[in-house]
Amino acid sequence: MINTFTPQNRILMGPGPSNVNPKVYDALSKATLGHLDPQFIELMNDLIKLLQYTFKTENNSTFVLSGPGSLGMEAALVNLIEPDDKVVVCVGGFFANRMTQMVEKFGGNLITVKETWGRAIDPQKLEDTLKDNPDTKIVAFVHAETSTGALSNIKTLSEIAHKHNCLVIADVVTSLGACEVRVEEWKLDAVYSCSQKGLACVAGMSPMTFSEKAVHKILNRKSQVRSWFCDYKLLMSYWSGEKRAYHHTAPANQFYGLHTALQILHEEGIENSWRRHKENSVKLISKLKEIGLEPLVPEKERIPNLITVKIPEGVDDVKIRLELLNKHNLEIGAGLGELVGKVWRIGLMGYNSNDKMIDYCISSLKDVLK
Amino acid sequence: MINTFTPQNRILMGPGPSNVNPKVYDALSKATLGHLDPQFIELMNDLIKLLQYTFKTENNSTFVLSGPGSLGMEAALVNLIEPDDKVVVCVGGFFANRMTQMVEKFGGNLITVKETWGRAIDPQKLEDTLKDNPDTKIVAFVHAETSTGALSNIKTLSEIAHKHNCLVIADVVTSLGACEVRVEEWKLDAVYSCSQKGLACVAGMSPMTFSEKAVHKILNRKSQVRSWFCDYKLLMSYWSGEKRAYHHTAPANQFYGLHTALQILHEEGIENSWRRHKENSVKLISKLKEIGLEPLVPEKERIPNLITVKIPEGVDDVKIRLELLNKHNLEIGAGLGELVGKVWRIGLMGYNSNDKMIDYCISSLKDVLK
Repeated sequence: MINTFTPQNRILMGPGPSNVNPKVYDALSKATLGHLDPQFIELMNDLIKLLQYTFKTENNSTFVLSGPGSLGMEAALVNLIEPDDKVVVCVGGFFANRMTQMVEKFGGNLITVKETWGRAIDPQKLEDTLKDNPDTKIVAFVHAETSTGALSNIKTLSEIAHKHNCLVIADVVTSLGACEVRVEEWKLDAVYSCSQKGLACVAGMSPMTFSEKAVHKILNRKSQVRSWFCDYKLLMSYWSGEKRAYHHTAPANQFYGLHTALQILHEEGIENSWRRHKENSVKLISKLKEIGLEPLVPEKERIPNLITVKIPEGVDDVKIRLELLNKHNLEIGAGLGELVGKVWRIGLMGYNSNDKMIDYCISSLKDVLK
Repeated sequence: MINTFTPQNRILMGPGPSNVNPKVYDALSKATLGHLDPQFIELMNDLIKLLQYTFKTENNSTFVLSGPGSLGMEAALVNLIEPDDKVVVCVGGFFANRMTQMVEKFGGNLITVKETWGRAIDPQKLEDTLKDNPDTKIVAFVHAETSTGALSNIKTLSEIAHKHNCLVIADVVTSLGACEVRVEEWKLDAVYSCSQKGLACVAGMSPMTFSEKAVHKILNRKSQVRSWFCDYKLLMSYWSGEKRAYHHTAPANQFYGLHTALQILHEEGIENSWRRHKENSVKLISKLKEIGLEPLVPEKERIPNLITVKIPEGVDDVKIRLELLNKHNLEIGAGLGELVGKVWRIGLMGYNSNDKMIDYCISSLKDVLK
């Protein structure tokens, strides 16, 4: 009825997943363990330490959510938002837009700061909005907007939010591991990421961290958290303390993979990883320009590990991507939302951020565009 | 800072995860794919077919939720419950109790049918409760209560619920693949399971299926679904139709593992799997009795693949389980909730449901109990 599944060995240069180190694959297939095995608890403790290093924080509330980054978004928002809390979301793309949908689902009073897709959020717009809305409780934004390729200055956005006594929810799904992220120094209160981009693991997990201020708000909620699976208190009863309380059955083999990926990142050194992604990005962009592909985002606002280029006029988006896939075994990303058919998204991250991949991407594009 | 992680090759005979076929490990470590790759969409379509076979349904709304079984519970409840809907939950253990917590989080009007822990739900109690609450919209219960070892007659419970015009939410987390489950014939409306028990895969995924009646209720909600990640409509835009809309980045390698596990189950034949679990269960229980361990649950109400035995008086629960783990590399489950310290939970499921494992379990228990 159903054949055995043998995936192509694709070159993954879309918005993530990317290819991973063979050591990560090896880790995935190690013998599975029970979710309360003392050895598994040790692994969880290691993951906390490795993530604190990666996030640049000493937050105790640092852990891996057993679901994709979009579940991490849900967990950050659902724990912090109480019904009628005024929440300002800075929207310059598809993923920040997703945040606004969640704010409404969780009963928040949504205020939107609108930015042009493909540009960093203008801090002045946030400042103005918060002046007009002094009762705002939470400010949420996306660091690296995966749909547009624009990187916002979250340090500045966070400063403005805190000046107005707001908590900060920061989406570092595409930036963590590949771009400078400093959770503690930048005073980010609820932060989530994913496993398959800058952390160079397979997809399906969401590393998270909460500041003491965020935890204080959660622990003093007047209403219930509108999720059981993402409820901070229940999650922490499994992730912390001497005696671990069963919450859910953790995906052990996925955690093995993440552990290995984070170790590799730690061995390289996070600052070195940031530098590598930046340097390779500059190289790739210069070569993309040479073959006539112009970046959508102004130079100073570009995500180093995810480059959006404008699809040249007269070029068939879908046809070219299919040709790349079928002829060169290469995946690049399509546009999302407003940018469907207008841009391609080229990921150069983690294990793939190197000269060989740059060359492969350029020669393949050159071939199909000729 | 952190050492490479090398898990012990444990014998897993707790409530799940269990050991898996080496083919499943091989599948986990195959080259990862993008979540919109045509080949990955084919894999998703295969998973739907394999799950329809496993659930015994032709429901179009059959898919894998990218999170553990407890997220599946959340997805079933959050989609079906609208604020103030009267929801009857039949509670005879820890997991049905979890359902009641979720009903409250999602704004449902909760009515509880209480059963003794370790017993199947008495259908008469449900009948009486529904007579007293003719405005009930939803009846929810757990088929195989993992915390107690009791198997309820969900066919009968479902008939009663439908007689009173209720939709049925059925938790088949511990039963699917190992016990008779017939979604279509038994008219179960929203059904969820997990990957690491009867389906014999690693943990972290939740297969789900929704009947047309359930879908009708969801599509006619007056209020928003209180979850973004678990929102049925958003999930189905990724799992069905000609053109797949990106929802989240699916855990590709986990799906490979599940695909292989479901193929193995399909090759055996689901009825053969049910029979194997039942026959091995009878053998195990008879041998457990021989070494002085009495089942908690009356014979006709036992889950075949998860046996709870009473901890003999004077025996130290924690000490024995640690000895099993450290001396025999064997994990069995502790009691949960009301049954902490009172029972052990012995899983005999999937790849582990065989004579060799029965003998290993008995000889190890005999050794540490002597």
